[in-house]
Amino acid sequence: MKAAILGIGTELLTGLVRDYNAYFLAQKLVDKGILPQFILFVPDQMEKIVDALQFIMKEEEVKLVIVSGGLGPTEDDLTREAVAQAFGRSLIFSPEAWDRIQFFYRELRNTEPPENNRRQAFIPQGAEILYNERGTAPGFKLEVNGKSIFVIPGVPREAEFFWSLIEKDLPREEEYFYRSPIFKFCGIGESNLAKEVEPFLRHLPSSFNLAFLPNYGEVWLYVYSSRFSPEEKESALIFLEEVARHLDRFFFSPYGDTLEEAVGNMMKEKGLKLGLAESCTGGLVANRITDIAGSSQYFERGYVVYSNEAKKEDLKVPEEILQEKGAVSEETARFLARGVRHKGKVDLGLGITGIAGPGGGSKEKPVGLVYIALSSEEGVRVQKFHFSGDRLMNKRFASQSALVMIFQYLKEKFGNEFNYHQKLCGFRPSL
Amino acid sequence: MKAAILGIGTELLTGLVRDYNAYFLAQKLVDKGILPQFILFVPDQMEKIVDALQFIMKEEEVKLVIVSGGLGPTEDDLTREAVAQAFGRSLIFSPEAWDRIQFFYRELRNTEPPENNRRQAFIPQGAEILYNERGTAPGFKLEVNGKSIFVIPGVPREAEFFWSLIEKDLPREEEYFYRSPIFKFCGIGESNLAKEVEPFLRHLPSSFNLAFLPNYGEVWLYVYSSRFSPEEKESALIFLEEVARHLDRFFFSPYGDTLEEAVGNMMKEKGLKLGLAESCTGGLVANRITDIAGSSQYFERGYVVYSNEAKKEDLKVPEEILQEKGAVSEETARFLARGVRHKGKVDLGLGITGIAGPGGGSKEKPVGLVYIALSSEEGVRVQKFHFSGDRLMNKRFASQSALVMIFQYLKEKFGNEFNYHQKLCGFRPSL
Repeated sequence: MKAAILGIGTELLTGLVRDYNAYFLAQKLVDKGILPQFILFVPDQMEKIVDALQFIMKEEEVKLVIVSGGLGPTEDDLTREAVAQAFGRSLIFSPEAWDRIQFFYRELRNTEPPENNRRQAFIPQGAEILYNERGTAPGFKLEVNGKSIFVIPGVPREAEFFWSLIEKDLPREEEYFYRSPIFKFCGIGESNLAKEVEPFLRHLPSSFNLAFLPNYGEVWLYVYSSRFSPEEKESALIFLEEVARHLDRFFFSPYGDTLEEAVGNMMKEKGLKLGLAESCTGGLVANRITDIAGSSQYFERGYVVYSNEAKKEDLKVPEEILQEKGAVSEETARFLARGVRHKGKVDLGLGITGIAGPGGGSKEKPVGLVYIALSSEEGVRVQKFHFSGDRLMNKRFASQSALVMIFQYLKEKFGNEFNYHQKLCGFRPSL
Repeated sequence: MKAAILGIGTELLTGLVRDYNAYFLAQKLVDKGILPQFILFVPDQMEKIVDALQFIMKEEEVKLVIVSGGLGPTEDDLTREAVAQAFGRSLIFSPEAWDRIQFFYRELRNTEPPENNRRQAFIPQGAEILYNERGTAPGFKLEVNGKSIFVIPGVPREAEFFWSLIEKDLPREEEYFYRSPIFKFCGIGESNLAKEVEPFLRHLPSSFNLAFLPNYGEVWLYVYSSRFSPEEKESALIFLEEVARHLDRFFFSPYGDTLEEAVGNMMKEKGLKLGLAESCTGGLVANRITDIAGSSQYFERGYVVYSNEAKKEDLKVPEEILQEKGAVSEETARFLARGVRHKGKVDLGLGITGIAGPGGGSKEKPVGLVYIALSSEEGVRVQKFHFSGDRLMNKRFASQSALVMIFQYLKEKFGNEFNYHQKLCGFRPSL
């Protein structure tokens, strides 16, 4: 089965909004072994939407069409009308859909819906209504000329919800496109990783491609193929496992999908608690750590010590250190890490200080200079970094380096004594 | 003049790479008054590329076509062949193009190009070669049936270079497309905003469209048109200003592009300092505040009081309150806000406590329940929210609501006594 994705919204055509839905849906489709053949974006204009739908309908291979966007309550939301026109159907008012919209407003917003929300209750004749659990706009499904057409809202979190409905509706078929799980490495660059992988390459079947994807200080590795035998697929996975074993100390994805999840799972398993003292990252590390459900089990507290007063009052960085060495110094990072470890009575205290930019730099201490210290029962280790991005990139890379330092500490201390390590082979049921 | 953008590359269709080029090109085209009517992505497959080109060629309005990607040296780079086939041309080897590729390799990589790079020197008959200053692949330009077709590499920094060539080639004409500045509102939903705008709609010329764009608790409003007189454009801008004046208390974009920048600019101008005490948002508010350059001028410190101990030790939330009312309660939010205001000696103390989920909810205190308190010299105001997203969305919406509370406080206290307010009218030189 092949698919097409149609995104509707003038904002996508004017560069106001960077597409997320098509990107998200493409990933999900590929996970199901379905390769999107076309992604199209058109503005909120009747004739453009109709043209695009007619183009897609002519593509024989395409059996699944996902149309996203233009289902809002306002005048410029034309997807309902355009779909009805493209397939020669009328729009019918659905009392059930209107009930749900009213219910949604009363329950969650404690008010009646404005009258213009009634527009959202009109559905093309013969379509199956798909109810929205995250917003007012219902979606719907049509079957036309052997194609299943799903029409869903453009709000990303609503689109994500509708994917869960589409997914249930997909027929079970054989895979014709395969992409391996993504193997994620941290603390090693792309070129070095490639060099380490090279000796293993002869074990990768020629029907498979190898891809490296650098991603904010991580490198992701995977293989993919459009034509492969079961034996070749098995060999490709063995190749990946050999590489992973060889590069074990950089390999974090067995422990979690993201680095923050990986270190979280590792700390949780070992019963360790973490405290943070952030200056230049401004709470970004705490934010990433707490993005993980259950992080309260290992994250005790964080301090965003932006001012010198906060550094002194909350974490006892001595005035002399701030005067003599400066707020951005190895010594300050050490005091921050030790300070939060003692104050929070935690196992791991992490301190970060640096210059995110664009202002605040000097010849001796340029923008991008960051010190990160990790305090544990073994003592304090400090690393100095010099990032060369803009403010947001410097914050991002500093937070990433902080997580890498925690990962490396845990890996050195506990090796592979983690239950999570089993996930390494977990994707291949034969092992 | 209207345009279409065709992105070629299997990675765009499998969700491995999030499109950048079409997003970038769309912005640049709109800046030139040219509206992209279609954006299409197709995989590296001959027939798909040809189908997409034929679809675009049928669209009469489209006079400019930018094709990006698939010009690399490997077997799966098929754009040259597909373009030649779609327009019935043969591919001609260009000795000049090959010279440039060899020169590029010798100069920059100190080596001879591999033989497969010769593929890149084949250009469709009659095309004008566009030389690449940032990579090996030449681009080219074709004129077919009154349309200008630019074919450029997919590597983003090379695509950016080629835009500079395309731009020079554009005819100097009147604006064909106009999009107004984006008017951003917070603290009001899309439907209610639409209701408030309705009485003004008769002032919007019929040649203009009005667009609403909900964006994580904000609503963005703008007008656009593809065919308009100078008088109509002026009227459309007056319409927007009337709307903005009417909805002044929700209208934040005069103060900054993002809500965190807006409240930052407002606090900076009034010399106010902010302190944060976050529980369920886990540092996200601090992170957003510190994403803004210069935020150290108004952001003093933040506490991420994830554990009850941290709430008690750092911000003096009384044990009895935590016992009797709970960590997630109006009272705790008040103590957090007052605590950070006093401890940090700041003008504004903001406290947030809630249940981000997915665990930790109960019947009385469900997931998504969040209390936000703002402490100032006028006293403490608390708002109760009930978000219905997943963990990340609840964090995001809570951080957004916190910023809205700060914005509303500042707006109530100072009205329009801000220099930044002048930006409201700044986009229209006549005012």
